[in-house]
Parts: sequence; C-alpha cells; structure tokens
Amino acid sequence: MSEEPGFAGACVAVVGLGLMGGSLAGALATRQACRQVVGVSRRPETLRTALERGWIHHGTTDLIEGTAQADVVVLATPPRVVLRQLREIGPHLQAGTLVMDLASTKAQVLRAMEGLPACVQPLGGHPMCGKEQAGIEAAQPDLFAGRPFILSPLPRTSAGALEQGKALVRAVGAVPVVLDAADHDRMVAWVSHLPHTVALSLMGAAMAGAQQDPGLWSLAASGFRDTTRLAASDPDMMLDIFLTNQENILRAMNAFREQFDKLYALIEAGGEAPLREFIEAASRRRRELNL
Amino acid sequence: MSEEPGFAGACVAVVGLGLMGGSLAGALATRQACRQVVGVSRRPETLRTALERGWIHHGTTDLIEGTAQADVVVLATPPRVVLRQLREIGPHLQAGTLVMDLASTKAQVLRAMEGLPACVQPLGGHPMCGKEQAGIEAAQPDLFAGRPFILSPLPRTSAGALEQGKALVRAVGAVPVVLDAADHDRMVAWVSHLPHTVALSLMGAAMAGAQQDPGLWSLAASGFRDTTRLAASDPDMMLDIFLTNQENILRAMNAFREQFDKLYALIEAGGEAPLREFIEAASRRRRELNL
Repeated sequence: MSEEPGFAGACVAVVGLGLMGGSLAGALATRQACRQVVGVSRRPETLRTALERGWIHHGTTDLIEGTAQADVVVLATPPRVVLRQLREIGPHLQAGTLVMDLASTKAQVLRAMEGLPACVQPLGGHPMCGKEQAGIEAAQPDLFAGRPFILSPLPRTSAGALEQGKALVRAVGAVPVVLDAADHDRMVAWVSHLPHTVALSLMGAAMAGAQQDPGLWSLAASGFRDTTRLAASDPDMMLDIFLTNQENILRAMNAFREQFDKLYALIEAGGEAPLREFIEAASRRRRELNL
Repeated sequence: MSEEPGFAGACVAVVGLGLMGGSLAGALATRQACRQVVGVSRRPETLRTALERGWIHHGTTDLIEGTAQADVVVLATPPRVVLRQLREIGPHLQAGTLVMDLASTKAQVLRAMEGLPACVQPLGGHPMCGKEQAGIEAAQPDLFAGRPFILSPLPRTSAGALEQGKALVRAVGAVPVVLDAADHDRMVAWVSHLPHTVALSLMGAAMAGAQQDPGLWSLAASGFRDTTRLAASDPDMMLDIFLTNQENILRAMNAFREQFDKLYALIEAGGEAPLREFIEAASRRRRELNL
C-alpha cells in the first residue's frame, strides 16, 4: 500500500470491465488518480478495448495474477461472482490490500468479505448510477460524476481503509455515503430493486396484451419507454439482485401490491374524491423529489 | 370551411391552451399552417402568454365566441371537460365545422360527439406524446414532431373531414394513424394508462417505505426517476383517464398483477432457472422495442 494519502501511488486492480468496472477503470486512468490501473477480464477482447481506450495500463485474464500485487482491488462483477472471487483471491493478496466491490446488494457480499485473511481490508461499495446497457461498450468514465457512492465498512475495516475508499470515490467524481450494509439493502430495495420488478412485470403485462393487440407496440410512447426502461437491464445483474436481497425485495413488493390493489379498487368503484386523493398524494410527492 | 385542400385558409379554434392545446396552437401558428388560430382559455393570463409567443392570433375566454366562427375546433381539455364542451358548442357551430378533441380516451368522447348537430363533422384525436409538466409553460410547438397522432372517425364522419384531420396532423409534424375508438382505448390502456397506475403505486410504496427509512429518497437514482416519472403527470388528466376507460384499465391491471405475483413467487422460491426465464423474456422483448 502506498504511503501517500489517498491512493495516488497505488496500483488498482479492477476485476470485471463491464459497465461499472470499465467506467471505474476509465475514470481512474483518465483522471490519473493512481499509479497504475490493472484490468482483469475473462475476455481478451475486452482487455484490448480497455487498453486501446487508455482505461487500463495492463490487462490480464488471470484473476490471481491481476490482483496479487494490487494495493486496491475492486471487484466489479455481479454479486454472486463477487462471492466466489473473494474466496479465490483471499489467500493471494498482499497484506494491507483494500478489497472493494460494486455490487447492488451488500449484506451477502459483506458476510463473504468476513472470510478474507485478517491482514486484508474489506469495504463494500455501491455506486448509485447505471444504465440499461451492459458491457464495456456502454462504459463511460463520467458515469459516477456527482452520484452517491455508498461505502459499507465491516467492523474490522480500519479508519484508514475507509478513508482510502472515500478517496477513490471522490477520485472518480462521486460522493461517498457511508451506510451500514443492512440499511443499504433495505433502502435500495425500495428505490432500485422494486422498480426493476415493476418494470419487468409491466413488460410481461404488455406482452400478454399484445397477444390480442399486436399493434399496441406502435402506440408506446415516452411514458411506456421510461416506465419499462429498467426491464432492459442486464438479466444476470437482475437475477443476482433478486437472489441476494430476497427478504427486503419481497417486503417492498408486498407494499407495492397493497398500493396497486388500493388503486384498482378506487378505479373500479369510480368515486372521484378518494381516487383524486390517491393520485394527488403520489403525484405531489413525486414532483417534490428533485430527480 | 375553406375550399382549399387541407386547411391553409381555415380558422382553427383551439380550446384549452395547456400542454397539448398550447403546443398545437404554437405548431399551427409558427408553421403558418392555417389562416388564423383562435385560442380559448378560462384564464386571461394564458391567452396573454399565447399571444406574446405568437401562438394564437386572437384569444377569448368565451367558449361560444371563440368557436362559433371557426372552420376547425380542437378541444384540448381533459376528457370530462370535452364531454361538457361538446354539448355547449354544438348548437352554435357553423355547418361543416370539423370538431376534434385530443383526449387520452376516445370511446366516451366519440359517444358524446354523436350528439353534435348533423351538419358538423366530428373526429376523435389523440396525439401519442406528452410530458409530466402541465400548462402552457410546458407547451412546445415541436411536441408532436414525428409522433403517432391517432384519429378516430365516427361512422358519420365524411371522408373529406378525415382528410382535413390528417392534414392538420401532418401540419403539426405528426404522423396520422386511423384507429377505431374501441381499439384505441383497449390498446392505450396497456401502453399508457397501465404505466400510470404502476408509477403511482410505486410512488405510494416508496412513501410507505420512507416512513421507516426517510433516507431512501437520497438513494433514488435514474432508475427510480424514470419508473415513477408518469406519477408526476397532471392529476386531473390521470383522474379523467381512469374514470373514462375503467374497463380496459382494470383488465390491464389484472394482467399486470398476474405477472407481478408470478415474479414474487419466483423470487420467494429462489430457484435460478425459472426466475432467469421470466427476467430474460421481459428483458429481451424490451430491448427489441425501438423506443
């Protein structure tokens, strides 16, 4: 680990060069935030693309080779791959290495991070940004600019390691937000995971409707486009989210269904005043949000 | 009615100068598509704004005065106001006047249009565009550019009147799509009205979650923003939509609930293969859509 504050002298290994990892590597390299960015990817062509763009200084398909000498390791793979990679890299890491992830759910990853050797510093991370495209083709070094970037330390995480994590977050242009893993998973279930289930179900419903009326797709405008956008997210990522945050997601889904059933009953009853009240409460709150 | 093809020599009265009516008046006037645009609004300040922008040539708060001499009347008010205004203007219109509306639901409006004097030409209209802001401040003359604009003729509507409606649609930059009112209402229930119910319910669910976790709003990113955007639509418009297309909306809501409950059960069961199948079917279809 570099003796300099932050990680200006550090070698940062980014494992997985998709939307998130590619963007992170690109942000670090193009902003010259650290001494070296090493990229790890299963696919040589992804490494070539990252090298050509100047987003990594060195690339390898070998997880152990790519991470063993790093001062900071960022696992930018889907949650369940992170769980496996933590087990694989643990024994080979240098003492003092900061190990972060970028996965959308935190509790399971942090439990797995407990299994890392005691000399290693684990720190959960989740940048609150994204888009529906996946892969390095969709990556962009300014993806994190101005976005909240959640950091979830473990009890064993040192204050210095947390500071280093914050420095990395700021170096890619994001805003560090320290949040307990359980709080994180409960809160993002409402604002991120639930919207994914809703978007997928809306697509499913429209597909059912299109069996009778194939022409409905030609009438879909910006409202349908935006409400279903999340359904086009990477299926592997959605699968991993749903399987690693079940309890919180099911609770949020139950709350959604309660609202949806209430609205159904109000429309069916056809009384203006209570229907207006429901609509206006949700509509007012939405307009108040600064999104 | 002008003898010229289309309506280059026509006086077009636009009733209601909100998002839709303001944009339509602005498109007609700035493209010099007709001889005169008369604006009708309850509020004098709206008329002043429209006059200042050059979107109308003449403004009045008097519905009868504004429409009695027009060759084309476009009612750009919410569906249930349209129903009332049709009764009010009917006896005062010139023979041959084309009477259109822009309401989001068509069956009820077209039934009311049947009550117009026989010498008048009724034509239902629904431009497939919009945004969550309401009022003339949100209006923009290019709102219709490239968008489908549905025209629903009645059995009594003459071929010439339908052609004049198509000419108006093309004059504001939109693409005319002729569709039976019942087909329209059934199809837009899936791609427009159902997404509104989903967005409102999602806001309601997040508001319930925020009672325990007020901090969740600060984690809301672009996914939540887009999935809930329609909840910020004009409450009066949503209310009118829900109350004038109940049957179709309830059918679409039932189909949504079926999908949502299926996804809930799959997440609860935790089996990877069937969950992946559900996700991938919806995700693939969404990516295929050219939205």
